[in-house]
Amino acid sequence: MPWVETKRIEAFSDGVFAVAITLLVLNLQPPVHATGHLWRALLHQWPSYAAFVVSFFVIGIIWVNHHGVFRNIAQADRILIFINLVLLFLVVLLPFCTALLADNLHRDINNIDSQIAAAIYSATMLAMSVAFQTLWWWAAKDGRLLQHHIDPVQARAATKRFGLGLVVYAGTIALAFVSPPVCLLVHFLIAMYYVFDQLPVGGRRVAS
Amino acid sequence: MPWVETKRIEAFSDGVFAVAITLLVLNLQPPVHATGHLWRALLHQWPSYAAFVVSFFVIGIIWVNHHGVFRNIAQADRILIFINLVLLFLVVLLPFCTALLADNLHRDINNIDSQIAAAIYSATMLAMSVAFQTLWWWAAKDGRLLQHHIDPVQARAATKRFGLGLVVYAGTIALAFVSPPVCLLVHFLIAMYYVFDQLPVGGRRVAS
Amino acid sequence: MPWVETKRIEAFSDGVFAVAITLLVLNLQPPVHATGHLWRALLHQWPSYAAFVVSFFVIGIIWVNHHGVFRNIAQADRILIFINLVLLFLVVLLPFCTALLADNLHRDINNIDSQIAAAIYSATMLAMSVAFQTLWWWAAKDGRLLQHHIDPVQARAATKRFGLGLVVYAGTIALAFVSPPVCLLVHFLIAMYYVFDQLPVGGRRVAS
Amino acid sequence: MPWVETKRIEAFSDGVFAVAITLLVLNLQPPVHATGHLWRALLHQWPSYAAFVVSFFVIGIIWVNHHGVFRNIAQADRILIFINLVLLFLVVLLPFCTALLADNLHRDINNIDSQIAAAIYSATMLAMSVAFQTLWWWAAKDGRLLQHHIDPVQARAATKRFGLGLVVYAGTIALAFVSPPVCLLVHFLIAMYYVFDQLPVGGRRVAS
Repeated sequence: MPWVETKRIEAFSDGVFAVAITLLVLNLQPPVHATGHLWRALLHQWPSYAAFVVSFFVIGIIWVNHHGVFRNIAQADRILIFINLVLLFLVVLLPFCTALLADNLHRDINNIDSQIAAAIYSATMLAMSVAFQTLWWWAAKDGRLLQHHIDPVQARAATKRFGLGLVVYAGTIALAFVSPPVCLLVHFLIAMYYVFDQLPVGGRRVAS
Repeated sequence: MPWVETKRIEAFSDGVFAVAITLLVLNLQPPVHATGHLWRALLHQWPSYAAFVVSFFVIGIIWVNHHGVFRNIAQADRILIFINLVLLFLVVLLPFCTALLADNLHRDINNIDSQIAAAIYSATMLAMSVAFQTLWWWAAKDGRLLQHHIDPVQARAATKRFGLGLVVYAGTIALAFVSPPVCLLVHFLIAMYYVFDQLPVGGRRVAS
Repeated sequence: MPWVETKRIEAFSDGVFAVAITLLVLNLQPPVHATGHLWRALLHQWPSYAAFVVSFFVIGIIWVNHHGVFRNIAQADRILIFINLVLLFLVVLLPFCTALLADNLHRDINNIDSQIAAAIYSATMLAMSVAFQTLWWWAAKDGRLLQHHIDPVQARAATKRFGLGLVVYAGTIALAFVSPPVCLLVHFLIAMYYVFDQLPVGGRRVAS
Repeated sequence: MPWVETKRIEAFSDGVFAVAITLLVLNLQPPVHATGHLWRALLHQWPSYAAFVVSFFVIGIIWVNHHGVFRNIAQADRILIFINLVLLFLVVLLPFCTALLADNLHRDINNIDSQIAAAIYSATMLAMSVAFQTLWWWAAKDGRLLQHHIDPVQARAATKRFGLGLVVYAGTIALAFVSPPVCLLVHFLIAMYYVFDQLPVGGRRVAS
């Protein structure tokens, strides 16, 4: 089985993350407005800005964690490359889910359409979480693909902690049908939590 | 003749792959729909989603194989750089071919327009396959540009295996005129086949 | 606390800068015009071109300074990564602020709408300046994250010089309400000043 | 004066080249057409495809030559970084010039509008050529910024050869007012010439 080093996988993934996070801005367009009413027209677009902010930090945090996971992976096999592609697929899908949510929140902040849009947004997050967990599970399974200095016990603990994310993201799908704006806010809070959380398997600096 | 190392060629190619694969999402737009009918409107857009998924994994797999081929190439000459540019040209063209196919499938899943769109999509794939084979043939011709550890016999075998891809892709052009959706499905299956297939010349890990 | 090296942070940031600076061109569209009147139609679009030029060099200069700052940082912690994400958020926002300013300058070069658009543009610049200063302040705080060869006195001097930028950018917000076009011009002049200014902490070439 | 190594400049430039070359595809849109007339509608869009092909290979070749020039540069100063930014500005402008030319060729292949669009396209190429020559002239001026193994005589010869490009590109501006399609064809031929031409200062492979 051809094992390859992860350097070019990381470079390609970084590129996809960088493009996806920047394409989010294309969802923001100068509003059509009557003369003298720009400010009001901008305020009216708040769902676009809210969704933009949340998705930006969500992709940013996924990038940080992607980085954190790959620092522990020494080599990749075909399956790992495929799981990573699935993860990137979901990242690339996010600008669309963001536009869909903003567009429907803009029409009505809590009707069946905005609920469905928020549920799709949440389901994409759940799928990302599953993809991440699968990636880590495959890499950590029998230690084949990990760096030598990774402690298997610690790796299994990280696997379990990822599992917690699944439950939370599944909850946001239910929340979407209660209140789409609150659902969006919760996604922001989850992203903030992950920012200040430790990386799953700590990147104790060994040497540069 | 100026021979150059392949590092910056790979970095540039990775950038193009990453942008092209992410630009695919711009083909997805929130549907215009009557209040309460978002779900139906989304289902109605299925050709866009199907084409998006197929093209994403097609570009993903081309990237993996590009990676696999360049790992065996030690240096590049002007001709190799030009062949690689032609390959990247086809990759960059793919988001347009995808939009063209989705747009015409959306109007009618099997009329002359969607057949032509599917044939153009398939022809682009065939051209990519030809570009790939040409790239490998040029690099492997007399071993000048390959890494020293590559076995010439194995390299020639890889050349032949690439040839098989040509026949398959030519077949999808014919299939486009029978059923455009089936044609799209076959492209997905080919991509999946390549995911789990071995790299043409195995990247046996030598040392990191 | 997991400290990580800054290499992949820089690569990701470079990607975001490169995409954001290139996406600016999407604000330029061939004008709709009567036959024989292309030239006049192009001149009519001057705010788009002016805003494009200014934002291009602004992002270019931010990239140069980002490079300059990170050359002095040896390792990153979670907070630094988060501050950097906030900075990148503002960079990604800039193409939208540019389109907003151009769109409103195009309608009227000095009414309340174009003044608000210019103020939002300036406020984004101020926020960027604050993010930059925070990034440097956090990295330099107790020398923890800096390269060993950085002189703490020099680092503190750089911190102060960043502070000057804050005052200038705050001034451009006020200027926006006097004359939006002059405000845009001043942003261009500031960018030019930074081009030829020394990097905050000089990158004396040690060895290559 | 702070001299910096060119690695991150090259990475950033590569990113801009990769995004700009891929954004060209956004100029291609599925044509609006009556049922059964896709093929005719596509043929009708030929100026878009022609301009897309030419601009793709032009940016591709500029990237190759950028690579060739920077391989000879050992370190960068502020002025060099600024000249490089101006060059990248013109690269980023090219997708717009391409759309402008295609849009006007589509209306009329040889009226004053398409002539102006072709002249703007040609002028951007001339400006790129000037930026390239300035970059090389500044780097080679007194050998300060070049790699040690570069022969000053050879470097001066390269400077002169760049000058030839200026004359040719100036000629395409005149040609734009004779025949815009021929002007576009000539740009393609120039790009092809540069593909198979040697790099200005040959990258004789020293060691890998």
